[in-house]
Amino acid sequence: MTAASVPVRYADPEVDQDCGLRERKKRETRLAIHRAALRLAHESGLESLTVDAISERAGVSARTFFNYYPTKDDALLGGSGADLESLPAFVAARPAGESPRESVRFLALQRVESLARDPELWAMRRELTQREPSLGLRFLGMYARVDRAMVDALIARARSERELSAADELAIAVEAYAALGAFRAATRYHLSAAADADLADVVDLAFGCL
Amino acid sequence: MTAASVPVRYADPEVDQDCGLRERKKRETRLAIHRAALRLAHESGLESLTVDAISERAGVSARTFFNYYPTKDDALLGGSGADLESLPAFVAARPAGESPRESVRFLALQRVESLARDPELWAMRRELTQREPSLGLRFLGMYARVDRAMVDALIARARSERELSAADELAIAVEAYAALGAFRAATRYHLSAAADADLADVVDLAFGCL
Repeated sequence: MTAASVPVRYADPEVDQDCGLRERKKRETRLAIHRAALRLAHESGLESLTVDAISERAGVSARTFFNYYPTKDDALLGGSGADLESLPAFVAARPAGESPRESVRFLALQRVESLARDPELWAMRRELTQREPSLGLRFLGMYARVDRAMVDALIARARSERELSAADELAIAVEAYAALGAFRAATRYHLSAAADADLADVVDLAFGCL
Repeated sequence: MTAASVPVRYADPEVDQDCGLRERKKRETRLAIHRAALRLAHESGLESLTVDAISERAGVSARTFFNYYPTKDDALLGGSGADLESLPAFVAARPAGESPRESVRFLALQRVESLARDPELWAMRRELTQREPSLGLRFLGMYARVDRAMVDALIARARSERELSAADELAIAVEAYAALGAFRAATRYHLSAAADADLADVVDLAFGCL
């Protein structure tokens, strides 16, 4: 796990820049492979999808492919491992004393931003998961796994700040899961009722309902 | 979709009894197939699992198998289709004017009860999903799908009672997802921190945090 994928303070700004650059290149390659996998599955279905075809489309070697994803299925799901790994650093970089709810809201708004930056990717994901229910199930599972990692990270952070009873941990988990639920409700609303609304506004509305 | 799997009132008590009996038999067969699939996977892994082997172990024909599950993977996940289908009837059978949060709490307590009735099944599921991460991912996806169906059912029910604006729908979805999050937090807590606590009590505690 590396902390360089989220804004953290380093003593030496040049080290910071180097790490940032390397991390950004890795993120870009990871995304390129994911995008290639989605495009190929989109064009010719899941059956004929191979690691070689994905690698070729992404312009990387099969060896490089396996540096980023253990299987072609993971490439289709895209970046979940990185998401999971970056959450503790993401949470650690939030201001001291911020509530779990606020940290989740900030995470949600960051997701919304990355969605807005790449609408084609998200449209392909949506279309493909609707066409292939078994893939849709795994996407839902992946989101649930990220939720769980976020809850774990929030509890770990609170534990580093003060002593937690089992009841304290439960309270943090409830607050975090409820906030993650508000985000889920916002994306549901955005997908069905009001696709023309700005998702960031819907997230604010949803958190206001909590 | 049939309403007979939840307590509803019929004009003729004999019809009620008949429906109840048929439904119960179906539920039992479905569970027997699920259990056989889990046991076989538990004993010999996922690779060698076949529909024939599952059917034989469950004491049903392959034809019967396919009446309940479209694939062996669905049998492994067990009963999700039925869960999804029974939710609208479950919600419709709750008292008029009950809040989404209360309906979710009632659903959670029903789940806890069925968990308590069959600890061996749940232990096998847990052990197997830990051993096979790809299966774990699909279980998480299945729970997320049930969550979504519950939210849809609650919105549909509210819509049958009164006119809903888009903002009303969002508010119901947030309340329901937050309550489902409290249930998720309770099971997480129960699995990690306090396996000796009564899960129904933990659910009450978690809902108290909302």
